[in-house]
Amino acid sequence: MKISARNQIKGTVSKIEKGATTSHVSIEIAGGVIVMAAITNEAVAELGLKDGEAVYAVIKASDVMVGVA
Amino acid sequence: MKISARNQIKGTVSKIEKGATTSHVSIEIAGGVIVMAAITNEAVAELGLKDGEAVYAVIKASDVMVGVA
Amino acid sequence: MKISARNQIKGTVSKIEKGATTSHVSIEIAGGVIVMAAITNEAVAELGLKDGEAVYAVIKASDVMVGVA
Amino acid sequence: MKISARNQIKGTVSKIEKGATTSHVSIEIAGGVIVMAAITNEAVAELGLKDGEAVYAVIKASDVMVGVA
Amino acid sequence: MKISARNQIKGTVSKIEKGATTSHVSIEIAGGVIVMAAITNEAVAELGLKDGEAVYAVIKASDVMVGVA
Amino acid sequence: MKISARNQIKGTVSKIEKGATTSHVSIEIAGGVIVMAAITNEAVAELGLKDGEAVYAVIKASDVMVGVA
Repeated sequence: MKISARNQIKGTVSKIEKGATTSHVSIEIAGGVIVMAAITNEAVAELGLKDGEAVYAVIKASDVMVGVA
Repeated sequence: MKISARNQIKGTVSKIEKGATTSHVSIEIAGGVIVMAAITNEAVAELGLKDGEAVYAVIKASDVMVGVA
Repeated sequence: MKISARNQIKGTVSKIEKGATTSHVSIEIAGGVIVMAAITNEAVAELGLKDGEAVYAVIKASDVMVGVA
Repeated sequence: MKISARNQIKGTVSKIEKGATTSHVSIEIAGGVIVMAAITNEAVAELGLKDGEAVYAVIKASDVMVGVA
Repeated sequence: MKISARNQIKGTVSKIEKGATTSHVSIEIAGGVIVMAAITNEAVAELGLKDGEAVYAVIKASDVMVGVA
Repeated sequence: MKISARNQIKGTVSKIEKGATTSHVSIEIAGGVIVMAAITNEAVAELGLKDGEAVYAVIKASDVMVGVA
């Protein structure tokens, strides 16, 4: 499925931390930067996510804020 | 200000497209990956954003989805 | 691409209203219910959206609230 | 209370899965489509949600993405 | 309609700025604090919003971040 | 870090409820109004949050809805 979200960043699963209903998935993208996603445990199972898996971090433009140091 | 959002990714402003109330800001992060943010025109002015500016793309973990090709 | 968002609802584009940077896309789903999406103009162009197009309304579970009359 | 969110879809609670702080509420809408909401346990208690309850799935237009198969 | 969003803060409309598809609504809450909402122009019309109107700023807990100076 | 989110509301932590991966942080703002934030347990630890801590409730304008009684 192609999707309207503007940001679809290639990466690899580096860690999965499971909670009661939500899992935190760490995705390593270019330059060794880690992006963390919080998704449901069902999604982890359904997508068959595991360490080393090639994935995309998918983020809507309206969910990205800009910070200035 | 330190903030709870898990993702604070270093980058540089590469393009700013202004709309009636919302601007689309393209941020180049490591590896030449472009992240697009949709923020208010007031925020662009207040943060003094311009091409080449060093910024952070700030994203909550709960706003990051995972996609598998 | 398979995606972690829990809600992927089949429908058809019934209307597209274009703004300066954002478009409002009305999607007719089962039972004639209309779901409105606000996405970037780039996404409308990139996905080649037009009236009658078969699409999915994709929504994260954490973005769905529950109301009781 | 009337609310600005563009999507207020009629349905019935079909399942409630409780986590440590967050519950996953499945809502059956027209055509037997299931929409999943992730809301706080307090909200489930306060709204008195239980299977069979008539509810609305309330979603902002900016939280709806569009996917094309 | 009662809604699952945890934050329903009483206030008064102090300004409405209309864009092509989105309006910025400033809401004055207790202590003179201003909260800004970005909602669709349809919502402004449908809710009949105007300066001085008694409203609620409605925000999901998962959309509130915490900052420390 | 200065951030694009339009709403940065001063307050004090009044309660922290920890779940498996997510914590609910109650923030008392002007007028005794309580704003609830749902953030990751890592964020609570990293920001060193505890009762009585001076903080900001940070909220994007696009995440604020408007309700009318």
